[in-house]
Amino acid sequence: MKYLTDYLEFETQQKRELVRLTDTVAQLVRKSTVKEGMVLVSAMHITAGVFVNDNEPGLFDDIWSWLEHLAPQKSDYHHHQTGEDNGDAHLKSLLVHHQVIVPITRGQLDLGPWQQIFYAEFDGQRRKRVIVKVMGD
Amino acid sequence: MKYLTDYLEFETQQKRELVRLTDTVAQLVRKSTVKEGMVLVSAMHITAGVFVNDNEPGLFDDIWSWLEHLAPQKSDYHHHQTGEDNGDAHLKSLLVHHQVIVPITRGQLDLGPWQQIFYAEFDGQRRKRVIVKVMGD
Amino acid sequence: MKYLTDYLEFETQQKRELVRLTDTVAQLVRKSTVKEGMVLVSAMHITAGVFVNDNEPGLFDDIWSWLEHLAPQKSDYHHHQTGEDNGDAHLKSLLVHHQVIVPITRGQLDLGPWQQIFYAEFDGQRRKRVIVKVMGD
Repeated sequence: MKYLTDYLEFETQQKRELVRLTDTVAQLVRKSTVKEGMVLVSAMHITAGVFVNDNEPGLFDDIWSWLEHLAPQKSDYHHHQTGEDNGDAHLKSLLVHHQVIVPITRGQLDLGPWQQIFYAEFDGQRRKRVIVKVMGD
Repeated sequence: MKYLTDYLEFETQQKRELVRLTDTVAQLVRKSTVKEGMVLVSAMHITAGVFVNDNEPGLFDDIWSWLEHLAPQKSDYHHHQTGEDNGDAHLKSLLVHHQVIVPITRGQLDLGPWQQIFYAEFDGQRRKRVIVKVMGD
Repeated sequence: MKYLTDYLEFETQQKRELVRLTDTVAQLVRKSTVKEGMVLVSAMHITAGVFVNDNEPGLFDDIWSWLEHLAPQKSDYHHHQTGEDNGDAHLKSLLVHHQVIVPITRGQLDLGPWQQIFYAEFDGQRRKRVIVKVMGD
């Protein structure tokens, strides 16, 4: 069994940003030389998400509007009594989930034709990390 | 370490449909002869989901109403400027998540008494796939 | 490849409760002697969730309000025609997801500084289980 662990670093320019990770993850899978197995891509922060969806800018707008509608930015979260102002970012993280597993078959990410891996930053402009762990043979 | 990879194909009669996958996944686990490990069940499309819940038709109605309430079908998604009409299906996929991991213990799916695996089609009547990857010893 | 499987039992005093699992999971990882791999933490019930987020009581209040807003307790779920009264608990489970994977690196849970694992009980005061499966070398 082979394992390769890497930590991707982000410090986004915007508070909220989507970053496509597919190529970076594919490169780490190649580096691992794993032919059969899986790769875990998991945010190490509680105000960020990782998901798989379509690489289409119109859809990105829809996703942001939708997340803002279901988990709105507002001042009166209890969490803000700690001095934080990112209550909505925690809820958005729960909503889209913070991790995905991508299967590896014949040395490749075994994704469908339109599936892309995204990092979703909900409280950026500070240093964040994502762990990528490749596991397999 | 043993690996078995299979691709389930779907072309649902309805635009939206739930398909119970538990028996099919259990059969692939038996075929793999894996006694300890896990099986990944993951939609290969971005307008479908995979989840674990109860096999109860009343609940299915509740799930559909709820998904329609939280991620409604409507015409004005930005994504529709590409010619697509399935913006809601992308959001529904994000909401229920597109994959589950089921643990395997003593050669069996180690599920709770009411846990069933479902494929959730949000934009059907076209060919879709789900990857099932069994990994273990 | 080593495997350690354990089942955590819960019978919460409240109908809805969050239980922090990080220390228990970390202890099982130590017991497994796995140095590289992952641990699956997965609810075995369809009215409970497992998620990773912040250990902050104000945020817990926000999470409960938010879940109640998006998947409210109410009498008219179709599921209640079976005699159950927990329709909302099924939807809350779908919303936060029922499982997480935590990577293991150098024998430790490889979590970010504020990441904690939680069991979310949505229909308690009865016996429930969570499977913890450690897999690695």
